[in-house]
Amino acid sequence: MSPVAFSSSDDQLPLGEYLFRRIRSLGIGSIFGVPGDFNLGLLEHLYSVQGLKWVGCCNELNSAYSADGYARMSGKLGVVVTTFGVGELSAINGISGAFAEYVPVLHIVGTTPTIFKADGRFTHHLVTDKSVLHAADHYSYENMVGAVSCCAETITHADEAYQKIDHVLSEILYHKRPGYLFVPIDLADSLVDSTSLLTTPGEMFYERPIDPNPSQTLKIATLILDKIYHSSNPCILADVFTDRFDMTETVREFVKSTQIPNFASMMGKGILDETENSYVGSYNGNESNQAIIDWIDSSDLLIHIGDYDNEINSGHDSIHSGLNEIITLNHERIRVCSEIFTDVNFVYVLPAMLALLEKAKIPETITDNWPIDKILMNHPTPVPTPHVSQTDLFYSLQEFLRPNDVLVCDTGSFMFAIPDLVFPQGVKYIGQQFYLSIGYALPATLGVGKALQDMGFESRLILVEGDGAAQMTIQEFGNYIQEGISPTVLLLNNSGYTVERIIKGPERTYNDIVPHWQWCDLFRVFGDYTETKSSSVKVKSQKDLSLALNSIQSGKINMVEVIMDKMDCPWRFIKMTANSKSKV
Amino acid sequence: MSPVAFSSSDDQLPLGEYLFRRIRSLGIGSIFGVPGDFNLGLLEHLYSVQGLKWVGCCNELNSAYSADGYARMSGKLGVVVTTFGVGELSAINGISGAFAEYVPVLHIVGTTPTIFKADGRFTHHLVTDKSVLHAADHYSYENMVGAVSCCAETITHADEAYQKIDHVLSEILYHKRPGYLFVPIDLADSLVDSTSLLTTPGEMFYERPIDPNPSQTLKIATLILDKIYHSSNPCILADVFTDRFDMTETVREFVKSTQIPNFASMMGKGILDETENSYVGSYNGNESNQAIIDWIDSSDLLIHIGDYDNEINSGHDSIHSGLNEIITLNHERIRVCSEIFTDVNFVYVLPAMLALLEKAKIPETITDNWPIDKILMNHPTPVPTPHVSQTDLFYSLQEFLRPNDVLVCDTGSFMFAIPDLVFPQGVKYIGQQFYLSIGYALPATLGVGKALQDMGFESRLILVEGDGAAQMTIQEFGNYIQEGISPTVLLLNNSGYTVERIIKGPERTYNDIVPHWQWCDLFRVFGDYTETKSSSVKVKSQKDLSLALNSIQSGKINMVEVIMDKMDCPWRFIKMTANSKSKV
Repeated sequence: MSPVAFSSSDDQLPLGEYLFRRIRSLGIGSIFGVPGDFNLGLLEHLYSVQGLKWVGCCNELNSAYSADGYARMSGKLGVVVTTFGVGELSAINGISGAFAEYVPVLHIVGTTPTIFKADGRFTHHLVTDKSVLHAADHYSYENMVGAVSCCAETITHADEAYQKIDHVLSEILYHKRPGYLFVPIDLADSLVDSTSLLTTPGEMFYERPIDPNPSQTLKIATLILDKIYHSSNPCILADVFTDRFDMTETVREFVKSTQIPNFASMMGKGILDETENSYVGSYNGNESNQAIIDWIDSSDLLIHIGDYDNEINSGHDSIHSGLNEIITLNHERIRVCSEIFTDVNFVYVLPAMLALLEKAKIPETITDNWPIDKILMNHPTPVPTPHVSQTDLFYSLQEFLRPNDVLVCDTGSFMFAIPDLVFPQGVKYIGQQFYLSIGYALPATLGVGKALQDMGFESRLILVEGDGAAQMTIQEFGNYIQEGISPTVLLLNNSGYTVERIIKGPERTYNDIVPHWQWCDLFRVFGDYTETKSSSVKVKSQKDLSLALNSIQSGKINMVEVIMDKMDCPWRFIKMTANSKSKV
Repeated sequence: MSPVAFSSSDDQLPLGEYLFRRIRSLGIGSIFGVPGDFNLGLLEHLYSVQGLKWVGCCNELNSAYSADGYARMSGKLGVVVTTFGVGELSAINGISGAFAEYVPVLHIVGTTPTIFKADGRFTHHLVTDKSVLHAADHYSYENMVGAVSCCAETITHADEAYQKIDHVLSEILYHKRPGYLFVPIDLADSLVDSTSLLTTPGEMFYERPIDPNPSQTLKIATLILDKIYHSSNPCILADVFTDRFDMTETVREFVKSTQIPNFASMMGKGILDETENSYVGSYNGNESNQAIIDWIDSSDLLIHIGDYDNEINSGHDSIHSGLNEIITLNHERIRVCSEIFTDVNFVYVLPAMLALLEKAKIPETITDNWPIDKILMNHPTPVPTPHVSQTDLFYSLQEFLRPNDVLVCDTGSFMFAIPDLVFPQGVKYIGQQFYLSIGYALPATLGVGKALQDMGFESRLILVEGDGAAQMTIQEFGNYIQEGISPTVLLLNNSGYTVERIIKGPERTYNDIVPHWQWCDLFRVFGDYTETKSSSVKVKSQKDLSLALNSIQSGKINMVEVIMDKMDCPWRFIKMTANSKSKV
């Protein structure tokens, strides 16, 4: 999408209109949120901006999750609008998740008017001070967001509005993390300087600044290539910052050119082209399949690209514990074996490596028995069950996947089976693999679906959702119908919080969920009474699951309630739990 | 309920067991929450404490609202348990609401283990620092809660556990505001000193400390009585802190003894016995019915008891703007006309006033035309509509109310009709009248219902819920069925956010909600498939509404979907909106 064409050459616009035009100029077509009396005056300006659509969510947490999904799918930005206090706090867990997982989201909060802030009056939605004798602090909520945002701007006067708006957006897109914009509602209609819409078009916000240290970049790129040339059996581990800092194509090209055996990290699933001969599987240290661990351990050089060092991704700190030499590259730090550099950024080093690459010097590592049978290597035999086993589901999903599908998975047991899937070309995977807030994926899928619509993509959308997670955010199903989002929903009904049962209390009531929901009636109740836009079926066996997946109706929401055992769980989660317990 | 009898005389207990026994000793029978890997070890100890029941909610915000409802109904304490980050942040808006409205809620958060906190490892559910080069701060979330809690205790060692637990509880019950308890999960099983369970039984937590300044109390009580004796036409305005600081019975007795004409504030609805001859109606300054304003304006002394000075309650600062003299009394400040005292507390002054009262000296104010027709005075003629009007609903509800009913109303249009109701004896009203977070009441009703069960009360429970509010937190309907809560639910279907439409954008899409929900099928879908525990009916006319309310089935959830016009709104909200706009 190209930035919107302005209908006038005015150099001033109302603040709200400037804000939404700026957002539109970034290629955004949909924004999410809930109205409230402190943001209505801002929302009014939406209607002056062609091509920007309001998606009213059922609540603010769902809005934040939707905006996060929109950002991940579009590769641009997600936007959520809430109201003072009640709205912004309801959304904060969604923002925190986006911060933890490096997702660019702008959270616009309509706040109390400037004069209220100045005189500290006791306005509704406000928490009064510990003592009623003191004036109220209208900045209480704003003061909470420092740890969950890369930038927070409070507009205090119309004169500074455009700079602050542009600044928070540019910080968000540079750091790939959420930012806040607090707009006192009395300023929504104030005229602000809007010339920057012409002088700084939206595309410029996505441009990478010029490398501040090109000689160091060249040195490090050369050093890394030299390490690779002198290794005998290198491997590449693609991690999440590769995706977040737009290095996916560069890494894919490097992999294609070098044919170095390559692996995906837990958070890096989907970055690599898994149809490449050189793709092996998923690696997260001791929590991986043993065959993968053996492979990595036998390599003399591990090149970990876009590394995000956290316990999930690193297999509880076991990912770099082998005997091989390690290279890690991300946006803040590059480690080349024993040397650490913090004055370089992989967004410059990787392209330099690609430019300098001498293919002939890359060691040949692909042996006679290549390609190995990737799936069988990774996945154990099904556990016998009268219902659908996790393994059944895994194989069915593997068979169901088509090129360019978008797969969203909520936090829960099956998330730990996904690394074993081998994706057809162009499959995109979205899940909150580190922050792990349950209930994320259901509204995130709304955002993903809106992004696909805005991008004009026809990808199939698949949501894997646990029953416990679904109960958290279920109301947003109604918006699938309203907004014309048509995913295939695999609703895993295993009667509670299976991942928690594995950790503790397998039979405890605290791991039960509110029982007996009629999952297959939900889309009827939430707006598709005549089932013209959705189709729902409950399956209790592998055969019925296959049948259901073979009968998916295009253009409809296809809900498949999958009956599973409450203690059935992918092998990786069990291995992870055992490994993590040993670390406490 | 009396504190639980201990089965052993051990002077040590596991921390989790100590915590839950202490909560049980406060007369609490139900606690609310969602499990997570950082609280499972704590929840295990629930099963060692007889009489304390886990109510697993669908999400954490709903849990916090439920705990708030439990606290308001029980007059004791609400307890919510969440997990690190993802859970605690999801609940924070509910806690903020409890803080704004002075509701005692304990929020227990199971956090990362002490050694993780010490070494700053990148644990899941955590936000990493702005730079990945820095260690993670495991206290990021704890640092957010200062503005929304009266006390926050982080347990760092088992030795201090019992003091910190007892301290946060005692602060919560003293200040009547929420507090946080952060428990690193590795300490859940650690043995802690438990002798205080015997030496400080739960009842003592509810005891008021001895008056630190009895001579000043006596002086102020005498001064106020003297003002009353010398007035000719005093009135009493009962406000919310009367309820929160357990002064309701004292105020009722004072009213009964003096027969001074009395009024309820917006937040004080239900404090007064409205069957008393001397009860007049609801007063919130310029936003009141004109007849009430005239009444107050003609009084020479306004005694505002339990005053919480905020814009909703004070009619945007118009409540004390008349020519009369003003006395205000709360827990931090007593104002007697021009004199202000901050070294006294109304919890001591009110009983002293009652003790010192000389009835003969009270001016006689009840005139010949008393009692006035309170309802007709307060409520205008219905607006013509093909559907059910707000006025129809008002009269139907007035007729439906019975003594000892509990009425819960969500934030929305009808909340502003409630002040005009005249409550039968013992009716309790619960609503978030100042913080005004929509979606509060639906889960709060779960908490209210659990409190009624725990207290052994047979009160009828009535929930008035808007469609926009209901969509926020709808999933908790499932728990009504699961937990045997049987309210009459008046679901006001007016196709969106009516209160916002009144303020701005009557026809804007941002004020629409996700349409076409089948409200009457919800209880079937959420667990009562055969409709043995619920009954649902849609009404489109006053006649059908009356019929439905006359056909309420006891022991069942009675859902009445009421079709209303999207711009119909009680007169008070329109008056309030006009008045508040004049204040910006």
